[in-house]
Amino acid sequence: MSDGGERVGKSDDTVGKVYLVGSGPGDPDLLTVKAKRLLEEADVVLHDKLPGPEILGTIPEAKREDVGKRAGGEWTPQEYTNARMVELAREGETVVRLKGGDPTVFGRGGEEMVHLAEEGVPFELVPGITSAVAGPAVAGIPVTHRDHTSSVSFVTGHEDPTKEESAVDWAALADTGGTIVVLMGVGKLPDYTAALREAGMAPETPVALIERATWPDQRVATGTLETIVAVRDSEGIEPPAITVIGDVAGQRERVLEFLEGE
Amino acid sequence: MSDGGERVGKSDDTVGKVYLVGSGPGDPDLLTVKAKRLLEEADVVLHDKLPGPEILGTIPEAKREDVGKRAGGEWTPQEYTNARMVELAREGETVVRLKGGDPTVFGRGGEEMVHLAEEGVPFELVPGITSAVAGPAVAGIPVTHRDHTSSVSFVTGHEDPTKEESAVDWAALADTGGTIVVLMGVGKLPDYTAALREAGMAPETPVALIERATWPDQRVATGTLETIVAVRDSEGIEPPAITVIGDVAGQRERVLEFLEGE
Repeated sequence: MSDGGERVGKSDDTVGKVYLVGSGPGDPDLLTVKAKRLLEEADVVLHDKLPGPEILGTIPEAKREDVGKRAGGEWTPQEYTNARMVELAREGETVVRLKGGDPTVFGRGGEEMVHLAEEGVPFELVPGITSAVAGPAVAGIPVTHRDHTSSVSFVTGHEDPTKEESAVDWAALADTGGTIVVLMGVGKLPDYTAALREAGMAPETPVALIERATWPDQRVATGTLETIVAVRDSEGIEPPAITVIGDVAGQRERVLEFLEGE
Repeated sequence: MSDGGERVGKSDDTVGKVYLVGSGPGDPDLLTVKAKRLLEEADVVLHDKLPGPEILGTIPEAKREDVGKRAGGEWTPQEYTNARMVELAREGETVVRLKGGDPTVFGRGGEEMVHLAEEGVPFELVPGITSAVAGPAVAGIPVTHRDHTSSVSFVTGHEDPTKEESAVDWAALADTGGTIVVLMGVGKLPDYTAALREAGMAPETPVALIERATWPDQRVATGTLETIVAVRDSEGIEPPAITVIGDVAGQRERVLEFLEGE
């Protein structure tokens, strides 16, 4: 606020605070108590599309700022978001940077924390429910299970496009014997299912795709490492979606009739 | 309710519902909106100690039932909890089975779902924030980071004691190159840090221990794969705690002065 004094409790001397907040998977009921309160109290909410229509719909238009895409349709660079958070805080605003899922699970929350610290802007990280856990769970799939797996690994199917080759070691992930959950992995499904099969994972390993987990139009499609690409195509599964690979994905059938809203 | 009719809306004909609810890491502000409401509405809350003193303290004593330990001090078998959930539901009660973190991340939520489905008891799974993500995050450590890691793996340091040898393939986990988060891994820290070093992980790899993440008495201790056992001993870190292994653990130093409540 360069004119100062207009808004009670704010002045040019006061730097506002930035809250890096996870929205959870999209169901407003799965916001944390703290996230819900901060969204009400914030002066500005910087967001992209991933928190989903229901949560974004609860935030007054006047305080929403979409940093997911700019007018021309291209993606907003991370540098813009970083600069905008600092600028708003220095104007004395209370800022919520709202992220789908959890800010630190493939959400760049780590980078944003460091940027704010380096700029001397007070911040607080508010965890959210990652869709990597909640997406499978609401589809009847526990990511871990005593009888099937001693570990679960989360990977992103949508790596930094500036990287020349995949930094994900699919063979090592296969060797863990644990559940593998791929976020943002609809497009590259053929690539990594092939890589996992080449690494020796059984073709009959159960695989599930959960599209728009916990959103009103959630969809689930199931198959095996061998069939899931064809299933994706015939069902027309599109991003955002979670891929779950491992024996636990087979549990869905055992609880199907008790799942809500399907 | 075998006497029937006393409680409005319940009768012997009506089977109650069981909600398998994640409490998150322990801060009541990190309960989901839904979990908070269900705790208010529930007739009975079956819990152990992991939701933490603050959250348990908000639940009226009269509807709490501790299934974590029995009078003699030994652990309650899972069979007892399974049977008790079914029994209460058949009495028409609305039951919350409250779990620390998320029910499906080393929480046996998967087993409980199947048991309820097989017994014909309606249930719903309500995800919570896993401390595997939130514990590191509130200590300034993002479990993933574009510059450091393309994956994160969660493992339990407290395996089923009936298993004869560790089912966790630490060498494969080391080979992923990703962050490793160990839940319930204070006691076996010497074993798995040694296993990871034998698998070729660098001794200077940063490691952090987060004890009682988000509880009022949270503590964090940091070191390397080489030093962390000595750090654990000198700091007296005790369960429950999360271990984070990987370059991301080094980020804490960069944001330390901005972390809340430390």
